[in-house]
Amino acid sequence: MATIVQKFGGTSVGSIDLIRNVARRAAACRQQGNRVVVVVSAMAGETNRLLGLAREVCDLPHHREIDVLVSTGEQVSIALVALALQEAGVAARSLLGHQVRIVTDDAHGRARIQTIDASAVIEALELGEIVVVAGFQGVDAEGSITTLGRGGSDLSAVAMAAAINADVCEIYTDVDGIYTSDPNVVPGARKIARIGFEEMLELASLGAKVLQARSVEIAMKHGVRLHVRSSFHDGEGSYVVPEEEVMEGPVVTGVAYDRNTAKITVCAVRDDPGVAAQLLRPLGEAGINVDVIIQNVASEGHTDVSFTVPQNELESALAAIEHAARTLGSGTVTSDAHVAKVSVVGAGMRSQAGVAVAMFEALGAAGVNIQMITTSEIKISCVISEGSTELAVRALHEAYGLAMEPA
Amino acid sequence: MATIVQKFGGTSVGSIDLIRNVARRAAACRQQGNRVVVVVSAMAGETNRLLGLAREVCDLPHHREIDVLVSTGEQVSIALVALALQEAGVAARSLLGHQVRIVTDDAHGRARIQTIDASAVIEALELGEIVVVAGFQGVDAEGSITTLGRGGSDLSAVAMAAAINADVCEIYTDVDGIYTSDPNVVPGARKIARIGFEEMLELASLGAKVLQARSVEIAMKHGVRLHVRSSFHDGEGSYVVPEEEVMEGPVVTGVAYDRNTAKITVCAVRDDPGVAAQLLRPLGEAGINVDVIIQNVASEGHTDVSFTVPQNELESALAAIEHAARTLGSGTVTSDAHVAKVSVVGAGMRSQAGVAVAMFEALGAAGVNIQMITTSEIKISCVISEGSTELAVRALHEAYGLAMEPA
Repeated sequence: MATIVQKFGGTSVGSIDLIRNVARRAAACRQQGNRVVVVVSAMAGETNRLLGLAREVCDLPHHREIDVLVSTGEQVSIALVALALQEAGVAARSLLGHQVRIVTDDAHGRARIQTIDASAVIEALELGEIVVVAGFQGVDAEGSITTLGRGGSDLSAVAMAAAINADVCEIYTDVDGIYTSDPNVVPGARKIARIGFEEMLELASLGAKVLQARSVEIAMKHGVRLHVRSSFHDGEGSYVVPEEEVMEGPVVTGVAYDRNTAKITVCAVRDDPGVAAQLLRPLGEAGINVDVIIQNVASEGHTDVSFTVPQNELESALAAIEHAARTLGSGTVTSDAHVAKVSVVGAGMRSQAGVAVAMFEALGAAGVNIQMITTSEIKISCVISEGSTELAVRALHEAYGLAMEPA
Repeated sequence: MATIVQKFGGTSVGSIDLIRNVARRAAACRQQGNRVVVVVSAMAGETNRLLGLAREVCDLPHHREIDVLVSTGEQVSIALVALALQEAGVAARSLLGHQVRIVTDDAHGRARIQTIDASAVIEALELGEIVVVAGFQGVDAEGSITTLGRGGSDLSAVAMAAAINADVCEIYTDVDGIYTSDPNVVPGARKIARIGFEEMLELASLGAKVLQARSVEIAMKHGVRLHVRSSFHDGEGSYVVPEEEVMEGPVVTGVAYDRNTAKITVCAVRDDPGVAAQLLRPLGEAGINVDVIIQNVASEGHTDVSFTVPQNELESALAAIEHAARTLGSGTVTSDAHVAKVSVVGAGMRSQAGVAVAMFEALGAAGVNIQMITTSEIKISCVISEGSTELAVRALHEAYGLAMEPA
């Protein structure tokens, strides 16, 4: 008998018919002899409707009472799923964040889970009930309702799976799984059967968008095996598992890209200790996330520093950096709003030489000019002209033979 | 500094504007130096919307998961009221039933309050905050959400007022207070400034509809002074207080009527011990509420038994009673669907002779025939033809001089 956590997002519970579908899947899993916990989000659109009510009343930042308000969305979902299960003759029980109980800090709207006391869940599972848990919500030490922020229901599901030592945490979504690249760009993109946590993290943060990075981090930390699959059919999706379970995987697992990228270059920066920090600190203070940072070897006591920021934050980034550059007596500041980042990710590249060279060759053969290069242990990223994104992604997908099943 | 509980029903929080109005009233009360607890219902229509969703999913009777679902209605209201208060610069905090905590039995959909641990409320009041409590909901010993059934928010407010020893529990409604009779029937009906609990109970159960009998019972038991008033203006409404606070009140306080009445007569019932019980037991078993019961003195070993039932339950009552009458060898069963009950209520009639006679004279002078009479310590009721209801109520209101301020 396996213990399985099933997580259904807002689009998977967006109507009464879809709620019945969730109940059907959970019941089928229970019927196969498994112990089943279902974690659900608010019905699609509900959270926005509730936030709209709040905005009519007040102009305040997100805090305690907003969480009281929006957490009703998941509460409605769990009640309806439990009712649908019971209507189908399956014993079920809903549990809210404070009933589970999922204890978080008190950072309303972006709370972090601290502990889960899953004894109420385990008790119900032992009675043979399906437990339907409200995603996205928890309770702080004072007993106030908290919410976890974007992707919160994934987090709830993964943390719950860790707490009850589940065999797998199934993430139901509107895609079939995780692909070797964006199928909209690469027609030959292939569903990945198994992918390691670290690889998934690199793909998630690069914009694969199926799983939030925070959920993958928690899954990795607690060794929770994830199964990303479609809520619309019973076919297998993609498993996200500990690296050691992906025996002899392919060198490159996937090709990601991020169009929301802009490049800034500050010329003739003094090559003194602490200068880079002084230059970039204003960006951090403005809440702007700096991604790729390149500093070339200095010549004549000066160097050029280039970095990327999200395209939609380019203007505020420029305002901050120009001030800093003047203060430091640096040279001109130039920028390009129309760049993109393409990345190849694969745990196998750790032990394999020539992966980077293959990337540069493929881009060169496709006529794509590389503007910046940055590498990590399992990822190589190149900043290129935005207009070449699709061409580059297709060329890389082809070059690493990703359309074919791995040997 | 007084402690005041303010209760606002669904029509008083039915829109964002009305929610702002609730916040304004609570803030004004706080500004006058009072400690303020606000109890609110779900926005008008919300509970029915949620029950509609449940009905789409299932066909089950009211139970645990329905309470999880419908209790979100009050949760949305308390969050919005707290936000509106904070937007107006007033410190406020919402509390759900389980946070207060309001402990009930586990009869979902019609739970009874067992205890209230108001320490969280008192703590917040001592910080100077307005506490906004979700009406209608509680939590059972296992931590499951429960709801209190019809009129539940009034109950929550009165029980909360008892728990924190409030000076008054204000019930905001869409009428100005409690009237000497239905103003739609009696143009001269006058708002009652003060009325005793027992009188209010008799008026409530007779269909005055402003306050549910259960709330008045709890208020009486715990000595909670009620103030029934309009949510649309600041004028005083009606106080419902311990009998001893209504010094030398009028003999008759109000005239009530109930059109939802039908009469059944069973002729020639054997006058033996236990026969009345045998006759009426099937009605109790069918859940039919028998109101007035009259049995005349027997002659020749037989008697006629008459009683009233709600008009909309007449058919099922007849089916039950005809079977019982046959079994007992009684005579014919006759019925009249078109009767009404008019009642005069007043604590003063305890010590005053001639009140009943005045009633019969007034009805006689108006040409209204009395079919049945029943009396309690503070109430006299007559069953009359339904068509004469308005005539009778006006005649009684006039006869007891209720349009004039009491001396």
